[in-house]
Amino acid sequence: MTTASESPVTITASDAENQPERTPELEALYRGFESELLIPLWTEIGDLMPPAPRSKASAHLWRWNTLLPMAERAGELVPVGRGGERRAIALANPGLAGRPFATPTLWAAIQYLNPGEDAPVHRHTQNAFRFVVEGEGVWTVVNGDPVAMRRGDFLPQAGWNWHGHHNNTDRPMAWIDGLDIPFQYFGESTFFEFGPDEVETREAPEKSRSERLWAHPGLRPLTHLTPAPATPLLAYRWEYTDRALSDQLALEAEGYPATAGPGHAAVRYTNPTTGGDVMPTIRTEFHRLARDTETAAVREVGSSVYQVFEGSGQVSVGDVSWTVERGDLFVVPSWQPLHLSTEHGLDLFRFSDTPIFERLDQHRVQEDPK
Amino acid sequence: MTTASESPVTITASDAENQPERTPELEALYRGFESELLIPLWTEIGDLMPPAPRSKASAHLWRWNTLLPMAERAGELVPVGRGGERRAIALANPGLAGRPFATPTLWAAIQYLNPGEDAPVHRHTQNAFRFVVEGEGVWTVVNGDPVAMRRGDFLPQAGWNWHGHHNNTDRPMAWIDGLDIPFQYFGESTFFEFGPDEVETREAPEKSRSERLWAHPGLRPLTHLTPAPATPLLAYRWEYTDRALSDQLALEAEGYPATAGPGHAAVRYTNPTTGGDVMPTIRTEFHRLARDTETAAVREVGSSVYQVFEGSGQVSVGDVSWTVERGDLFVVPSWQPLHLSTEHGLDLFRFSDTPIFERLDQHRVQEDPK
Amino acid sequence: MTTASESPVTITASDAENQPERTPELEALYRGFESELLIPLWTEIGDLMPPAPRSKASAHLWRWNTLLPMAERAGELVPVGRGGERRAIALANPGLAGRPFATPTLWAAIQYLNPGEDAPVHRHTQNAFRFVVEGEGVWTVVNGDPVAMRRGDFLPQAGWNWHGHHNNTDRPMAWIDGLDIPFQYFGESTFFEFGPDEVETREAPEKSRSERLWAHPGLRPLTHLTPAPATPLLAYRWEYTDRALSDQLALEAEGYPATAGPGHAAVRYTNPTTGGDVMPTIRTEFHRLARDTETAAVREVGSSVYQVFEGSGQVSVGDVSWTVERGDLFVVPSWQPLHLSTEHGLDLFRFSDTPIFERLDQHRVQEDPK
Amino acid sequence: MTTASESPVTITASDAENQPERTPELEALYRGFESELLIPLWTEIGDLMPPAPRSKASAHLWRWNTLLPMAERAGELVPVGRGGERRAIALANPGLAGRPFATPTLWAAIQYLNPGEDAPVHRHTQNAFRFVVEGEGVWTVVNGDPVAMRRGDFLPQAGWNWHGHHNNTDRPMAWIDGLDIPFQYFGESTFFEFGPDEVETREAPEKSRSERLWAHPGLRPLTHLTPAPATPLLAYRWEYTDRALSDQLALEAEGYPATAGPGHAAVRYTNPTTGGDVMPTIRTEFHRLARDTETAAVREVGSSVYQVFEGSGQVSVGDVSWTVERGDLFVVPSWQPLHLSTEHGLDLFRFSDTPIFERLDQHRVQEDPK
Repeated sequence: MTTASESPVTITASDAENQPERTPELEALYRGFESELLIPLWTEIGDLMPPAPRSKASAHLWRWNTLLPMAERAGELVPVGRGGERRAIALANPGLAGRPFATPTLWAAIQYLNPGEDAPVHRHTQNAFRFVVEGEGVWTVVNGDPVAMRRGDFLPQAGWNWHGHHNNTDRPMAWIDGLDIPFQYFGESTFFEFGPDEVETREAPEKSRSERLWAHPGLRPLTHLTPAPATPLLAYRWEYTDRALSDQLALEAEGYPATAGPGHAAVRYTNPTTGGDVMPTIRTEFHRLARDTETAAVREVGSSVYQVFEGSGQVSVGDVSWTVERGDLFVVPSWQPLHLSTEHGLDLFRFSDTPIFERLDQHRVQEDPK
Repeated sequence: MTTASESPVTITASDAENQPERTPELEALYRGFESELLIPLWTEIGDLMPPAPRSKASAHLWRWNTLLPMAERAGELVPVGRGGERRAIALANPGLAGRPFATPTLWAAIQYLNPGEDAPVHRHTQNAFRFVVEGEGVWTVVNGDPVAMRRGDFLPQAGWNWHGHHNNTDRPMAWIDGLDIPFQYFGESTFFEFGPDEVETREAPEKSRSERLWAHPGLRPLTHLTPAPATPLLAYRWEYTDRALSDQLALEAEGYPATAGPGHAAVRYTNPTTGGDVMPTIRTEFHRLARDTETAAVREVGSSVYQVFEGSGQVSVGDVSWTVERGDLFVVPSWQPLHLSTEHGLDLFRFSDTPIFERLDQHRVQEDPK
Repeated sequence: MTTASESPVTITASDAENQPERTPELEALYRGFESELLIPLWTEIGDLMPPAPRSKASAHLWRWNTLLPMAERAGELVPVGRGGERRAIALANPGLAGRPFATPTLWAAIQYLNPGEDAPVHRHTQNAFRFVVEGEGVWTVVNGDPVAMRRGDFLPQAGWNWHGHHNNTDRPMAWIDGLDIPFQYFGESTFFEFGPDEVETREAPEKSRSERLWAHPGLRPLTHLTPAPATPLLAYRWEYTDRALSDQLALEAEGYPATAGPGHAAVRYTNPTTGGDVMPTIRTEFHRLARDTETAAVREVGSSVYQVFEGSGQVSVGDVSWTVERGDLFVVPSWQPLHLSTEHGLDLFRFSDTPIFERLDQHRVQEDPK
Repeated sequence: MTTASESPVTITASDAENQPERTPELEALYRGFESELLIPLWTEIGDLMPPAPRSKASAHLWRWNTLLPMAERAGELVPVGRGGERRAIALANPGLAGRPFATPTLWAAIQYLNPGEDAPVHRHTQNAFRFVVEGEGVWTVVNGDPVAMRRGDFLPQAGWNWHGHHNNTDRPMAWIDGLDIPFQYFGESTFFEFGPDEVETREAPEKSRSERLWAHPGLRPLTHLTPAPATPLLAYRWEYTDRALSDQLALEAEGYPATAGPGHAAVRYTNPTTGGDVMPTIRTEFHRLARDTETAAVREVGSSVYQVFEGSGQVSVGDVSWTVERGDLFVVPSWQPLHLSTEHGLDLFRFSDTPIFERLDQHRVQEDPK
């Protein structure tokens, strides 16, 4: 039971336009509101209904050469096992109240597994993926299907599938995880279950069974003919991504429309059963900027996380700019303009929450005038 | 710029299982994480990934006979006009950090307009609706179409349509507003624009133009043949809702399947261009429990707000129970079981965020064993 | 077994351009083709691939005052019962080889039931409907639900539902049936099953159960929440159709966009679970032309059948023109321009095969220049 | 103008059950029907509404070693050029009235191009594809994009795209064409336009531009993000099809579910923008039966054409059976059971009209009891 004096609600002066004068009568009314757990719109509207999105999140950059040593040190000090579940260290956006959230909807972490280690099996409603900027040697085992992880591979892991990881080699491996943890946390839709403490298999095949069923362009097995909410393909190999991007740039050079913009090749990872995004809440793409390429400044509803895969370049997000290198991760908050340029070429992996806004008819995108 | 000592991030002891021993080396690593804006999964997993949704929101009841006098008093003290925009007073869930949020995704407010007053014209991406538990005399003007508001009417107002209200009578009127303000606030997708300070028209027709085009069962005008993201019908009149519910109970009495459960008639308000929910983020329904009816306890992902329209009954949400009367509003947080019963009959208006979870493949519903 | 001389295939001289000279060698090749059941494209392309659709069907008019007496005479001479199933007399388009096909895809018939008669129960994959231009007294019983039929009512009857009819009065009744019999006949998708010889019930309620569940604008019962392939609403009453059309014309008079064209009100009958057509293969609409109204000449892929419900007017289809009166039925073949005009007002019921072409991405529509 | 005596309609005695006795009065009525272009249901129902589909088409086999020499002879006698458009020779099902229709909805032809020849450019609403059972050397040029054709390749060609072919080599080439000509002919939806007499380019690249944009598994270019009605990928290469089938059989051997049935690998060609069929009216699949494999007898609404790509086997369709070899083509009419078996292995290409029936909610499939 809350009383007026200890109500969780406090109504304070607002800087919104045209506020009523704070007479004693009005103050008494506000105290009454507080005791009854009521808050007027007119004191809050400026924060709640801005002319355009004002993200609480900041544009921020995390350097790979800072992240990786920290993950290595965690590899020495922190065991991986049941309870903690994963040796994953998340980006905590400085604008998001000290929570491990890269953006209001997205989680991004570096995960690290020592030789011979297992990350135990569990499942959760959160949609997840892994992306490998360097290294190899870990297999993620999804519903018993071991999936090799290697540089440049994108490995989706849709919600409510059993999964664990094992490192079969004598070297450690690091990679990044992306999930919709913050979105499901705010939305309160998360379920979680423990599986076995060890992965079902330590087999380490070159190709997962999912690839043997699904990684054939334009073909689907007759055993799976209905649209699935998320992709059944568990590995999108670098070989194909790289070739698709090179082909786009070559077509552009031959005079055909193929690129997202001049010098800017880009592919979206898709669910082969629908042609849509790989997962209901997360979009993933790979962008390649050729030498001496610059993009227009674009703002979009929703947030993104980028990781530099190769090359270097200049990134500006709103008023902030960085020179980025391999492995660096940066965040683009909602409706902040992103501008990219590179002298020597830049390969970027991107993930975003755009499907949420598209499916709910809230998406907007806009190119800023130069 | 943040330094280590003033980092927005603090890593504290976790009650999650199997935490590593907090040695000096580990503490040093945690301080390093903080300075680099990193947070490990293993200290946070208990909060972020519970076995099932644990809502921050509380089950809570607001009494109409408390709300209405407060709205009347606001009618005396607070002018309505440009800047504050609306004389709306929102339910602030005691679990949600003092924000004017009924649930993590939904806004619910009582709005009040004095005789002769105008609520100025604006538009916003938030989806909205009005529901009238008693009174009449206000017209909401949507893109220039004046829509009468009367007891029992449901009046949807999808995002990005111009709208204002005017009270043409010599009596004040109160009603409730429902919006997806918290959802769009967390998702950072909100846009807002001011329109004229006065509504475009003070006409007060019996029927809106939208009803004359759309309120004919199973018929659509040839001028509008593509699916619209939200309903073009601006008023769902009580006459039809009431008759649909009565017909269901009569059919049940005649031995035909027609009700959601024994004695439990229910309709969903739909978008006639799709048959789906009236708006992309908000579901609205009306439930009628006949005398001596009791429902099973049902839990669902996502949250709801109910308003008692008529009658009385007992409501329990998780461990909390209330006896409810006309106009009372209560909140059902995600995955908390709702159980309803009535001796003399109970009519309930409901709105929820279910479309968000259905469209993102995160919806679950479960009937608790008796 | 076919031999060359009795092959079902004969290759004849073609009037297509640039045919090869019919040398003895070519004739020998053609005889070889025939014996092997082969036909070259080059002799057939003119017929198979015209620049635009050239319908085999003719524009044709059937007069109600001819049809009705013939149906009455059939009522005297032909019993209705198991085997023949229905006392239905179909329009046989003069261009369609003596088959009972109004158009290449659509069946249209007058059906007639004497006082006290039953049309026995059966079901079939063909989609069907009834429309009543005059009279009343018959109930169509669909899956046991008796549905009154009265002037102006449209009564859909989607494939594979059990149905029969009974006449409860002391007067005969006639109405029209529309089905996709020719389409399913060519496509070879038809299934048929006999039910009881007599309808399950001779109840004659004012309203069907389907209407009590579904004929509430914008509302759907919680018992039926998934999209259905065809409408669950079994009667679209004249009262609503008439009001929707009057409202459109009134809105137009007040200066608002509401009509398909000046003086031309029109509604489409829809499936309330999807907002789309009432049945997968058949579109149904009602058009009202106000006094002194004329439409543009429009051509469309696919064919239509119209029945005059009230009033009179001039109809031209390609080169053919008629003055039409109440009850008259006429056919508009694919891609033939339809032009309508009226001095005193004209109410028209229309059905067409358009959903077939829309769903298969073959639909085109074009307004002819004046 | 037709008079009674020369009416295109004739009503003859029916073998349907329970026909009315043919009294003079009834005969007079029937003559009246004829003169008014009317036909009763009761004399026709047996043909129009059978208990299950009774296809007019026959199960029939065409031998490749008969077809190919005839095509070669046509290559000597019949020029290819404007007017005739293509040197294509169609299968004429013996049940389909001497028309060049393999089934009621599908066209199948062998096409033949001599060294240096061009098939002129045109476009049509008919959906088309090519499949190559042997040979190479022709490029099909689609909207200016030259697409190599080689053994095992499937080359879709959706409606209303400009296309021609050129043979760049010193050898002739034959392949099969599949189209929905009969369906669009009966439905009367066909449009056709001539393009240039010669193909736009005689370039002969290894890979088409469409492949460079689209043949990367699970990836789509950011330039094309909306669902397309038909596949933008113009070549599905044998290399991928073969590997997908081999992988399925290997997975089955390892104990995982991957095949359509024991020893029966199968893939469907899909539109990468939707995951659905390559074209709105035509489904295409490739089936591989391992040695000593037998399928269940399956019947399906709609018709199929199969071509043997490799191996040999026994095919039965209803009461008809054949031993089939490379290149042989056979037809499976609607609802006739198909049973396949092979001793040494059998590779089959299939195309069917199933999307028509699925999109119109008329599809059924049934496995016959053994």
